[in-house]
Amino acid sequence: MASAFETKATIATFGGKLLKLSHRSNATQTPMDVNLYLPPASNDRKVPVLIFLSGLTCTPNNCSEKGFFHAAASKAGLAVLYPDTSPRGADLPGEKDSWDFGEGAGFYVNATAEPWKKHYNMETYVTQELPEAVFGAYGDKLDRSRVSITGHSMGGHGALTLFLKNPGMYRSVSALAPICNPSQCPWGEKAFGGYFGQDGDGKALWAGSDATELVRAKLKSGDKLPCLIDVGTGDNFYNQKQLLPENFEKAVKETGVEGVTVRYQPDYDHSYFFISSFAEDHVQHAAKYLL
Amino acid sequence: MASAFETKATIATFGGKLLKLSHRSNATQTPMDVNLYLPPASNDRKVPVLIFLSGLTCTPNNCSEKGFFHAAASKAGLAVLYPDTSPRGADLPGEKDSWDFGEGAGFYVNATAEPWKKHYNMETYVTQELPEAVFGAYGDKLDRSRVSITGHSMGGHGALTLFLKNPGMYRSVSALAPICNPSQCPWGEKAFGGYFGQDGDGKALWAGSDATELVRAKLKSGDKLPCLIDVGTGDNFYNQKQLLPENFEKAVKETGVEGVTVRYQPDYDHSYFFISSFAEDHVQHAAKYLL
Repeated sequence: MASAFETKATIATFGGKLLKLSHRSNATQTPMDVNLYLPPASNDRKVPVLIFLSGLTCTPNNCSEKGFFHAAASKAGLAVLYPDTSPRGADLPGEKDSWDFGEGAGFYVNATAEPWKKHYNMETYVTQELPEAVFGAYGDKLDRSRVSITGHSMGGHGALTLFLKNPGMYRSVSALAPICNPSQCPWGEKAFGGYFGQDGDGKALWAGSDATELVRAKLKSGDKLPCLIDVGTGDNFYNQKQLLPENFEKAVKETGVEGVTVRYQPDYDHSYFFISSFAEDHVQHAAKYLL
Repeated sequence: MASAFETKATIATFGGKLLKLSHRSNATQTPMDVNLYLPPASNDRKVPVLIFLSGLTCTPNNCSEKGFFHAAASKAGLAVLYPDTSPRGADLPGEKDSWDFGEGAGFYVNATAEPWKKHYNMETYVTQELPEAVFGAYGDKLDRSRVSITGHSMGGHGALTLFLKNPGMYRSVSALAPICNPSQCPWGEKAFGGYFGQDGDGKALWAGSDATELVRAKLKSGDKLPCLIDVGTGDNFYNQKQLLPENFEKAVKETGVEGVTVRYQPDYDHSYFFISSFAEDHVQHAAKYLL
């Protein structure tokens, strides 16, 4: 069980409050920072929660400052929860050597390989420990029965996979420039090779945390996947085949899954200039299922 | 005359394009970065321009990334122009010793004291050289007859003073947490003491670049000042009497000037969390006079 939250800052913004919180996680055995945006209070009703999973290198602050979710969340009456992207300060060998592996790059999985498995348990943290802590501390303001999930890049992978692995946990999913088929791209091969293993039993685990493979394994024709994906056509990582939304689309089509919208936005890049431009759409997508 | 713009980046955002530009300035004798947001093109009409002057330490990028003017500017059909806050790279002694004087702290004045007067001519740069360069290069897209000005903190001071000093140049003015009476606050005393001088002829110049003094000197009863000011009550710098909007309000009231709205926003701080929350209001204030 996580420790109680320490409130490091309370910031007025868009009519609500952004709380910068920290607590000690049992899943990661480290302190974890998390930001929580509470929209303006209205009629003492509990508000639903949209979880935003950030991309490689980010902390909870990047999207809080540059993602522009609060403008739309304030209007819709949603809270937004920003977990960190990995444990920090675990002090493992090589943990800080790469920007796309280790610290800032937890990939929202539970590592099974040494030395990562003691701390790199972001899946348990995001799906179990963090919600327990947040709904425990803010249960008077937040409705734990209404939660959706979204994310960017590595966090888009996190949103898609955690949604697909946990039926009923989230009411909808969306993603901005998500990694869609990590087993087939350099970022994913490095991360899954490290956290699960390069071959044998480790390699066998990759498909279980791969959004495209999960569509094929978990869904069948006619199943509804309430999913919005945006990708910029000027996104270098998309063009370098790190994201592979086309593979996800193919799996959706071949499986006969319904409800998925994938949009290619002309010229947009991978940055927060892209995220912020479509934040309102992703809040409204979630709001359709939460309100 | 400034050199031609070099385009360092073109970024799709909120349906328009953010251009990161650089040119060599004659007024400052240095290269100057400037950002220009162009809203989505519509019917080949030229769009008006809102100039945003940034606060201490900022470059054109801070507000471009965190101010969220583009969401509202895109809807209204305004361009937004972000000058830098000072010359950079002039290599003057002590230029980088303080965060509130020298580099990043040009205060939008023309320095008269040594060693600053050769380079620190931000007033000429913002009011003359930059508009000439921008309307020269983008005259097919921008309407030079429709320009308004806004800004934050030191940039709010810049917006208020440049508006008051240059009747007819801008159609409206607004400011977020502006320094309003620099002659009476530590930031202003340091800046004006350095750029103009601590006494004698130098000190005599302070009032000519002080927004509160300019209201008293330039305006008379019944004059209209199309001005919106927002200040957060949780702003440390407001509470430390660096901003002094109350002095500006007093000058407006005692002079009998009309059209000024000063709003105190409960709990908001001095940061971009505050700026972004009210960016839409400041775009709409400008749009009333520009569209």
